[in-house]
Amino acid sequence: MPQRPSPLTQIPADIVCAEDYERWAERNMSSAVFAHLSEGSVADTTLRANRRAFERHAIYNRILVAGDHGSTELMLCGQRFRHPFLLAPVAHQGLFHADAELASAQAANALEAGLVLSTLSSTRLEEVAAQTQAPRWFQLYFQASKNATLSLVRRAEAAGYGAIVVTLDVPVHGVRRSSQRLGFTLPAHLNAVNLKDIDDGPTRAISRDDSTVFQGYMADAPTWEDLAWLLKSTTLPVLVKGVTHPDDALRLQSLGVAGIIVSTHGGRALDGGMASLDALPAIRQAVGPDLTLLLDSGVRSGTDVFKAIALGANAVMIGRPYIYALATAGALGVAHLLRILRDELEITMAQAGCLHINDIGPHTLFSPSHLC
Amino acid sequence: MPQRPSPLTQIPADIVCAEDYERWAERNMSSAVFAHLSEGSVADTTLRANRRAFERHAIYNRILVAGDHGSTELMLCGQRFRHPFLLAPVAHQGLFHADAELASAQAANALEAGLVLSTLSSTRLEEVAAQTQAPRWFQLYFQASKNATLSLVRRAEAAGYGAIVVTLDVPVHGVRRSSQRLGFTLPAHLNAVNLKDIDDGPTRAISRDDSTVFQGYMADAPTWEDLAWLLKSTTLPVLVKGVTHPDDALRLQSLGVAGIIVSTHGGRALDGGMASLDALPAIRQAVGPDLTLLLDSGVRSGTDVFKAIALGANAVMIGRPYIYALATAGALGVAHLLRILRDELEITMAQAGCLHINDIGPHTLFSPSHLC
Amino acid sequence: MPQRPSPLTQIPADIVCAEDYERWAERNMSSAVFAHLSEGSVADTTLRANRRAFERHAIYNRILVAGDHGSTELMLCGQRFRHPFLLAPVAHQGLFHADAELASAQAANALEAGLVLSTLSSTRLEEVAAQTQAPRWFQLYFQASKNATLSLVRRAEAAGYGAIVVTLDVPVHGVRRSSQRLGFTLPAHLNAVNLKDIDDGPTRAISRDDSTVFQGYMADAPTWEDLAWLLKSTTLPVLVKGVTHPDDALRLQSLGVAGIIVSTHGGRALDGGMASLDALPAIRQAVGPDLTLLLDSGVRSGTDVFKAIALGANAVMIGRPYIYALATAGALGVAHLLRILRDELEITMAQAGCLHINDIGPHTLFSPSHLC
Amino acid sequence: MPQRPSPLTQIPADIVCAEDYERWAERNMSSAVFAHLSEGSVADTTLRANRRAFERHAIYNRILVAGDHGSTELMLCGQRFRHPFLLAPVAHQGLFHADAELASAQAANALEAGLVLSTLSSTRLEEVAAQTQAPRWFQLYFQASKNATLSLVRRAEAAGYGAIVVTLDVPVHGVRRSSQRLGFTLPAHLNAVNLKDIDDGPTRAISRDDSTVFQGYMADAPTWEDLAWLLKSTTLPVLVKGVTHPDDALRLQSLGVAGIIVSTHGGRALDGGMASLDALPAIRQAVGPDLTLLLDSGVRSGTDVFKAIALGANAVMIGRPYIYALATAGALGVAHLLRILRDELEITMAQAGCLHINDIGPHTLFSPSHLC
Ligand SMILES: Cc1cc2nc3c(=O)[nH]c(=O)nc-3n(C[C@H](O)[C@H](O)[C@H](O)COP(=O)(O)O)c2cc1C
Ligand SMILES: Cc1cc2nc3c(=O)[nH]c(=O)nc-3n(C[C@H](O)[C@H](O)[C@H](O)COP(=O)(O)O)c2cc1C
Ligand SMILES: Cc1cc2nc3c(=O)[nH]c(=O)nc-3n(C[C@H](O)[C@H](O)[C@H](O)COP(=O)(O)O)c2cc1C
Ligand SMILES: Cc1cc2nc3c(=O)[nH]c(=O)nc-3n(C[C@H](O)[C@H](O)[C@H](O)COP(=O)(O)O)c2cc1C
Repeated sequence: MPQRPSPLTQIPADIVCAEDYERWAERNMSSAVFAHLSEGSVADTTLRANRRAFERHAIYNRILVAGDHGSTELMLCGQRFRHPFLLAPVAHQGLFHADAELASAQAANALEAGLVLSTLSSTRLEEVAAQTQAPRWFQLYFQASKNATLSLVRRAEAAGYGAIVVTLDVPVHGVRRSSQRLGFTLPAHLNAVNLKDIDDGPTRAISRDDSTVFQGYMADAPTWEDLAWLLKSTTLPVLVKGVTHPDDALRLQSLGVAGIIVSTHGGRALDGGMASLDALPAIRQAVGPDLTLLLDSGVRSGTDVFKAIALGANAVMIGRPYIYALATAGALGVAHLLRILRDELEITMAQAGCLHINDIGPHTLFSPSHLC
Repeated sequence: MPQRPSPLTQIPADIVCAEDYERWAERNMSSAVFAHLSEGSVADTTLRANRRAFERHAIYNRILVAGDHGSTELMLCGQRFRHPFLLAPVAHQGLFHADAELASAQAANALEAGLVLSTLSSTRLEEVAAQTQAPRWFQLYFQASKNATLSLVRRAEAAGYGAIVVTLDVPVHGVRRSSQRLGFTLPAHLNAVNLKDIDDGPTRAISRDDSTVFQGYMADAPTWEDLAWLLKSTTLPVLVKGVTHPDDALRLQSLGVAGIIVSTHGGRALDGGMASLDALPAIRQAVGPDLTLLLDSGVRSGTDVFKAIALGANAVMIGRPYIYALATAGALGVAHLLRILRDELEITMAQAGCLHINDIGPHTLFSPSHLC
Repeated sequence: MPQRPSPLTQIPADIVCAEDYERWAERNMSSAVFAHLSEGSVADTTLRANRRAFERHAIYNRILVAGDHGSTELMLCGQRFRHPFLLAPVAHQGLFHADAELASAQAANALEAGLVLSTLSSTRLEEVAAQTQAPRWFQLYFQASKNATLSLVRRAEAAGYGAIVVTLDVPVHGVRRSSQRLGFTLPAHLNAVNLKDIDDGPTRAISRDDSTVFQGYMADAPTWEDLAWLLKSTTLPVLVKGVTHPDDALRLQSLGVAGIIVSTHGGRALDGGMASLDALPAIRQAVGPDLTLLLDSGVRSGTDVFKAIALGANAVMIGRPYIYALATAGALGVAHLLRILRDELEITMAQAGCLHINDIGPHTLFSPSHLC
Repeated sequence: MPQRPSPLTQIPADIVCAEDYERWAERNMSSAVFAHLSEGSVADTTLRANRRAFERHAIYNRILVAGDHGSTELMLCGQRFRHPFLLAPVAHQGLFHADAELASAQAANALEAGLVLSTLSSTRLEEVAAQTQAPRWFQLYFQASKNATLSLVRRAEAAGYGAIVVTLDVPVHGVRRSSQRLGFTLPAHLNAVNLKDIDDGPTRAISRDDSTVFQGYMADAPTWEDLAWLLKSTTLPVLVKGVTHPDDALRLQSLGVAGIIVSTHGGRALDGGMASLDALPAIRQAVGPDLTLLLDSGVRSGTDVFKAIALGANAVMIGRPYIYALATAGALGVAHLLRILRDELEITMAQAGCLHINDIGPHTLFSPSHLC
């Protein structure tokens, strides 16, 4: 294996946007790890759709709007955010940089961005919490037993996480062709530290003729009852991640979730062409103006953030881009990336005549049918 | 001629989907045989359309659907199928692997997939039937004389085929530019063994000024009367393959066919841009919910299968992909391919919240006009 | 200048369609001549549109249509044609092959295709007529003086041409960037022989401040009065070539033309994106079912011919493809090309269930909006 | 740094259109300067949209329109223009050619094209005015203080500029990734000479926690009151440049501006996908037939000019193309480019049956939905 370059300690002048970090990161990883990070699922249709969707909307520039009170501040689930950006939960960050989630947390602190820590983090959730001043939420995967799930929730509460984000779009593991071709496997030392001492009960036995999908994964997948139980089991606001159907959104709303994250898991769960951004308007329309909606999957610039907000999101989460930055230059890279996105968003808002996040709405977009 | 690699006896780790088999197969064949297998007709417009059509529909992911009773079982023409996949009739499989149709049958047995044997198989229909436990149907080309046609039907009945699939979309041979350019011809030893002892009557003489198409092929092409005769001549269910117009579907239904296969012959018959998948919804709408509809042409993944079923098919047939697998690794390859497709379908169903084939319907799709 | 290969005297097996002739022809010509032949005008938008337009329509295959009476015969302006193909008027064929228009005529004879001779032919119109048994029409460019125009018409009548095709879409010479870049000029020996002894009157003087377009070309361009005069001056049927607007078509119809050729001059006149095929339906709708309509520009296969007829044309003209064939293999090449197109059309008709040209109509097409 | 070729003193035969000048110019500049000139902003979405928009409209060719009175003359804000072309304001032309704005002016004189001089010209506005006989306007950027702004206006009035063009679409500097990556900076000797002796007051101090966009640029950006003040402060006609929203257009109209320039600043201001041409029809519809509307961004040929006028513009401005010509061959290049565009426009008009600018309108276009 050729020696990989070590992460940078200074940002080169030719990194000026999220895509530049992707190019740099590719050089800093083995091709199997890069495949694991960059791939979607099956034929990557949703992965591509997530990018193209943003091209279907144009932004009106507006003139002669001025003032010194502009800001990107906003409230989400009762918590104040400086910008509408959160770092999405990305598992096993030790794969990408020795500092792993602690580097991401450091950058979030510096730029006052929200951070959502994955159940599958390489760093214990308590350790990350201790290092994070920025708003932090905990992403929860239901464990096979309620006890195991509850113990994660209790630890998150105790560590001071401000909300639980339950991810529900991967009842089965997606089909990941590229990393499978390159034989990607998680290195042994990168086990899921948060789950280390968790007793998840006996594994269900499936017979030779059974389907691993149906008699395996789906037999144990979480249900609406499980979610209702979770909502009752914690006083933290609970957001659900991985929703694209308005009916699911409505049912979640009536169940009392604090928010919904419209997401295709970055195109890594169900493949088939639905972009998160395309799913967003119908969901906003279904749940009305008040429920907190976040969007992720495919956000790569401040322009994209603007469009997501205009179409109904309160804020967005960023996935791969910050991991590319992490792999390239650790905490410094992630902070730089967040700075770029923030600048791009502010410039876009200024040009669109929006001095506050609340000024951004459907009326700021031009979405003719030919933009498809 | 350079020595071709022999078929594999083990599946390399980098074959993870149908398209991978296509790449491998290209190395295992002469370019003329590969052209013959992969090409469409005229300008390959329909060939391409068959793939693009699947991109016009996206699948909703649904959350919190769980249970241990999921399955892909279904009934077709009164017969039970473990999965909604059949191996499409592909002529002269001796071109691609020494074991020819027997390898395909072996794989169908192993994976419990349906098999449709071509009139033009390289192996006698009786021999294939004897080796096949999986549901098997016989694909019939009308012969010039009714006697010849009838003798094929009687043999299929005797050998235990469960249905007759009459292919009607090639009254004339399609325009096959690529294989013509490379001078593809069927090797002498690969004659159509099923037709060996069949007396098909004298060939029609056409005069110098006649058109080989109109006074040749079309003068002898089958008619609605011929089909009606066939339906009366056998007790087996008869399905018609090669339909894209709803009016034809309706007329077939009133004639009493057991099912219709919406197909463009993999883009090898009429060129001109109509994808099988695009033709499907109008045909389902015309014939109502009960008539058995299959689709083929362009299916390459479990996602595609899901979409075809959502748009009205009961099941699909797979053509070239299994032949690519056959050429690459014989029965082992075909079985592996079927396993991949089955896994992809089950995963897609799980992610879409469908635990049974019947749960898949138009409501599971998002098909906005911009997905075109 | 490198030695060009001489035209072939036998057709290589790898020429199986019109596009193959284009590739071969490119090798048989200087790049300047190839540029002159293949280019469109300005940014080649219309050139490209002419091809893409055919992809917006798909053809339904139909089943169980048979019979021995199929044929492609048709009547145009009272004259019988074996096939709905005419060789479009293409100037200066001496550029492409020593036998020039005589080779084209020989091929038209052999395949019974119609031939339209350009005013600017390299061979005298009388000489071509003497060698042509196939239906032949004369393409007329208005000359600056009525006398000159009339003398061409009289010669065409005397030589036995069956119709006059007046081309009206080039009042000014189009912008031809590629050939201009490569410095294409007509070789001195290829003057327009038909215009040799024609006295076209004094040239109009334009002042230094005048526009060569407006005070030059347009001051002398033909008018509706000129066309009315022409119609009265000959007993031959007069067709007008170069129409895309339905209002022009209607006015031509009421003036009494025998037919209209919907054409963009192969994308060589006005650039700007209108495909001939896109203009056709509105024109057929405007003029009703009876007026003879031809289409040219972009026809490359029998499938294209079928679509043009389905959208309202009675027949089509082929431009560049036969010139590519001429440059590649003289009369033999042109005959081969016509044979290919005829076969492709017959096969397409058979597959679409059309045994006669009259069976082809809008109902044979599937033209959903996503095919754009 | 490799030696760049010096500007040409003669036009090579292979420059025949605007795009050719772009290719030549790329060789005549450092890559950083070329990036600065050619780039858009953020992801260049609007840059690309500006070109693609023209492909969504096709032009009808019309036949038998003739006459010797054709012309491209028009009136704009009471001033006579020979052609509907103006050279757009482009800053710092000293970057591209030693003669800078004087070369552009010389070409404008020769071809009687309008010229709009940038506030940020490399040549003093008085010097340019003295060399320009062609219609000339002054492009104004609001300065931080009214005094500074007013002094520019007074100087423009005194120098004989015929109108003020206030550019309002860059309240903040756009995100320019390419030139940033290549480290482009303005050479020290190319300071903005017009602003040299201007006292623009103290710079606003912003605190460490402030946003440079919101508390910096936007705090000082011009307002509707500032524009009203400007309109009252000069007797020259005032046009506003950089409008895409019909509501802004309406408000400007009621404020009494002399005209509006529908522009995306060549894709260099707000990125996000809106083409100037796409914004034009709604603005023409909002302001009615009488208000002067210009369009720029993406115009590259006479065909484009025709389409812009057909969709509601009175005239167009050309940006980068003339700068490419300037860099390639100085005044000679710019004059040649203008000649090409003028010829292309006249030829297009002739082919479309329009002998005057007023004949060009929506009825000359065919804009079906498939042209997208
Ligand atoms: C390598 C990788 C690991 C991920 N791990 C998790 C995870 O543990 N939990 C989760 O909810 N989402 C996970 N996601 C999904 C992200 O939270 C997010 O939805 C997605 O990356 C957003 O799309 P983007 O990458 O296009 O911005 C992961 C994504 C990637 C790329
Ligand atoms: C090489 C080849 C041979 C075929 N032979 C037959 C045949 O004998 N009978 C038949 O009904 N269809 C035949 N087909 C069509 C297939 O049954 C099927 O319709 C088509 O391959 C499906 O499209 P796909 O290849 O894109 O999956 C053939 C297809 C190919 C590629
Ligand atoms: C090199 C060349 C010369 C042509 N000369 C003439 C001509 O003399 N008169 C005429 O009416 N059309 C002329 N045309 C236009 C053709 O008649 C016809 O409209 C066009 O070639 C059809 O488009 P296609 O080439 O895509 O088939 C010419 C076309 C080409 C390519
Ligand atoms: C290098 C460059 C500098 C420019 N400078 C100015 C300027 O100083 N003032 C202004 O109003 N517009 C400026 N523009 C915008 C142009 O006036 C015009 O809107 C744009 O170039 C038109 O698009 P086009 O380049 O596609 O033709 C500049 C554009 C470029 C490319």
